Amino acid sequence: MNHLLSIDDLDRAALDELHALAESFLEVTGREIPKVPALRGKVVVSLFYEDSTRTRLSFETAAKRLSADVMTFAVGSSSVKKGESLRDTIQTIAAMGIDAVVVRHPSAGAAHQLARWVDASVVNAGDGRHEHPTQALLDTLTIRRHRGPAIDGLRVAIVGDVRNSRVARSDVKALALLGAEVTLVAPDTLLPPSLAGWPCTATHDLESVLGDVDVLMLLRIQRERAAEASFPSLREFTARWGLTVDRAARLAPGTLVMHPGPMNRGVEIAPEVADGPRSLIAEQVHNGVAIRMAVLWKLLSGGSGGGMVA
Amino acid sequence: MNHLLSIDDLDRAALDELHALAESFLEVTGREIPKVPALRGKVVVSLFYEDSTRTRLSFETAAKRLSADVMTFAVGSSSVKKGESLRDTIQTIAAMGIDAVVVRHPSAGAAHQLARWVDASVVNAGDGRHEHPTQALLDTLTIRRHRGPAIDGLRVAIVGDVRNSRVARSDVKALALLGAEVTLVAPDTLLPPSLAGWPCTATHDLESVLGDVDVLMLLRIQRERAAEASFPSLREFTARWGLTVDRAARLAPGTLVMHPGPMNRGVEIAPEVADGPRSLIAEQVHNGVAIRMAVLWKLLSGGSGGGMVA
Amino acid sequence: MNHLLSIDDLDRAALDELHALAESFLEVTGREIPKVPALRGKVVVSLFYEDSTRTRLSFETAAKRLSADVMTFAVGSSSVKKGESLRDTIQTIAAMGIDAVVVRHPSAGAAHQLARWVDASVVNAGDGRHEHPTQALLDTLTIRRHRGPAIDGLRVAIVGDVRNSRVARSDVKALALLGAEVTLVAPDTLLPPSLAGWPCTATHDLESVLGDVDVLMLLRIQRERAAEASFPSLREFTARWGLTVDRAARLAPGTLVMHPGPMNRGVEIAPEVADGPRSLIAEQVHNGVAIRMAVLWKLLSGGSGGGMVA
Repeated sequence: MNHLLSIDDLDRAALDELHALAESFLEVTGREIPKVPALRGKVVVSLFYEDSTRTRLSFETAAKRLSADVMTFAVGSSSVKKGESLRDTIQTIAAMGIDAVVVRHPSAGAAHQLARWVDASVVNAGDGRHEHPTQALLDTLTIRRHRGPAIDGLRVAIVGDVRNSRVARSDVKALALLGAEVTLVAPDTLLPPSLAGWPCTATHDLESVLGDVDVLMLLRIQRERAAEASFPSLREFTARWGLTVDRAARLAPGTLVMHPGPMNRGVEIAPEVADGPRSLIAEQVHNGVAIRMAVLWKLLSGGSGGGMVA
Repeated sequence: MNHLLSIDDLDRAALDELHALAESFLEVTGREIPKVPALRGKVVVSLFYEDSTRTRLSFETAAKRLSADVMTFAVGSSSVKKGESLRDTIQTIAAMGIDAVVVRHPSAGAAHQLARWVDASVVNAGDGRHEHPTQALLDTLTIRRHRGPAIDGLRVAIVGDVRNSRVARSDVKALALLGAEVTLVAPDTLLPPSLAGWPCTATHDLESVLGDVDVLMLLRIQRERAAEASFPSLREFTARWGLTVDRAARLAPGTLVMHPGPMNRGVEIAPEVADGPRSLIAEQVHNGVAIRMAVLWKLLSGGSGGGMVA
Repeated sequence: MNHLLSIDDLDRAALDELHALAESFLEVTGREIPKVPALRGKVVVSLFYEDSTRTRLSFETAAKRLSADVMTFAVGSSSVKKGESLRDTIQTIAAMGIDAVVVRHPSAGAAHQLARWVDASVVNAGDGRHEHPTQALLDTLTIRRHRGPAIDGLRVAIVGDVRNSRVARSDVKALALLGAEVTLVAPDTLLPPSLAGWPCTATHDLESVLGDVDVLMLLRIQRERAAEASFPSLREFTARWGLTVDRAARLAPGTLVMHPGPMNRGVEIAPEVADGPRSLIAEQVHNGVAIRMAVLWKLLSGGSGGGMVA
């Protein structure tokens, strides 16, 4: 494993191993000094062509907890403005002697391109509408921590702006790998044009799945990708596909509620639900750091597990 | 002490303790390797919703000297742009497992809000026109290092744009706590609408206090807060309330001149005075790092002083 | 040696010493943990008034490999916006107790100014059209690693936008110091107004030097400095002064091709040549980190070489 570009890079065993590693790192993060020298001297570059707080901070926190050095490449202050190509930018950065690049880019496939151009390990932190594999890893870890490692047959609904969501695409793949049964819930305009390649079913009707799922995952309406052109109004969207207080009350007992953030409170999820007892939203963020520690460690340590968290 | 939101959080003993800690850290910063492992593994996030160089760099230098990891949250590249609320932003950051947040925000009370929402320690690095407690701590430390720890009865004039200044508000409180006698000097339009809650007196007449103070603290004209609408012209302001070379010559011998920076040279202070022998401006900056080390250490170390600077 | 402001600061012995140091650091960067504790506790500030990726990242990587703490001062989020002068900015930063400032500034002479104002070591990372000494150090190191340490009499052509290039000015000086023979190749409008102070010759005719040089150094067309006003069109420029595939084929065997980056591919250099076997472009970047380690170490360690890379 040299890169993490897509959930397709993983088989069940690899996914299980990353989850097991992340569990170890969750234990580390609970220590008085939540830091291990595992990647001392390694250089991790975060290369974000799209704004992001949570993902960049999460990766950088993970890298620092492994004692790696972190270099942040801010798009605003870059050679990109001078017309340099993505290829020249990454090859330049690589020539400085780095070990991993965490990349977010508005174009689907950008991370795969980078991986062809450099020797360093590439981690896809979101490429256009394509994939966001660490989000899927942390989402499935969060579910397993609540429902036990065997989640075959677990019923998961993913609700909202699926079409514009790289999170949905990665989540569906990871959930399918673990044997969960996934249903997409959205208006036609927010579903993928075809479900070919999506190992799941789809419905327009949120009401019909409410009482019948173990996990309800909401998605962010991607306002910055003009998702709003796909339905009459935000109010309309909320009325039919938002997780309102009323709908939350009709979920089966024990149904878990998740959201990858950042939330549009009052749109895809009611504030009371987001902050309510079913919500795993903060836990998702917490687990994200451990997942990113696992991925960076797996890619950069040579992969032998011995003494990892000494 | 979980947070430092306002000088109101401190009594005299707590202020004295922070000053004593800062003195120890000033000794550390004079060492060949000015670094201690006191906060190794702790994560400090700087969350700046307003531009600032000096304050952010000062806090980050302080954190690094204590061996903490520092994460910088730049407003420009944030989920804020995606419409995320301050509450969701901070709770997300907190879920990653951080220990302290240093926050600057244009709204008075923002730091207090954050402290309600997260378990991490919150340090107010300036909230609107409200408070900037570490500036007051470093200002009073600087005075004490020149005038001895007992500054009861010391006469301090704070001159200029008091109304828009969080520095002035915090300084007045800290000086009052130490028993100093403070006079605000400004035109009516730059004084607070009421002095209720300000333990000090006020005058319009800078000339009348010149020969009669131990410390003259200038304030920055807050151009970015439209302070200039409050007087006819900068020239007019300087003519009546600026510390010109001529006025500086009429200060009593030994009077200390201070300014929190960044200065508008030639407006509130003449360049010759800023760079002159009475000026403590560089020393204020220098002491600021030690004060911020003291505050972070006090908040994050559990507070037991034993072996702190080992 | 307290600062590195210009190649003029160096004599032949000092240049040789920095190259020897860089060779040691190249060995360090090849290690499993490419990090030495040489500058632990030192604080290096990067103060960039112009956008740059490669140079800033290169210096920061170098500083981190020496275990220094790095503070990044982003112009966009700075007191500069509040009208603070360069002098006040740097004196404020210096008062926090820093050891070195790496500065890039659009004005020629800015680094020299800083050096007058602060005790910290100043490294010029590019000042206007004036100098960029570490680029010249890494360029000459790269040539020596291919041609042996004695490069007296080596023939070097520097082609393109010389007039707007601080790289060219520093390279000419460093190459002259080492005894190389330099020819500038450009249209009149892109040559310096006078060659006084440039220890080299000049020609308009790229064809005439092609078969006759050991090293061909291309320069970036400085679009951001309106270089395009100096010739009819980019196409015209490429036709006469670009290193096309055809021209590259007519270089003598063994001629080295260099470019400081970022490249305008297809303008001053054809993509096939940039990526071809003669190109040292990635190696220049790689050597840059080692050169910057050498410079920072030389400036900050006290200069005694004993046990440096322990």
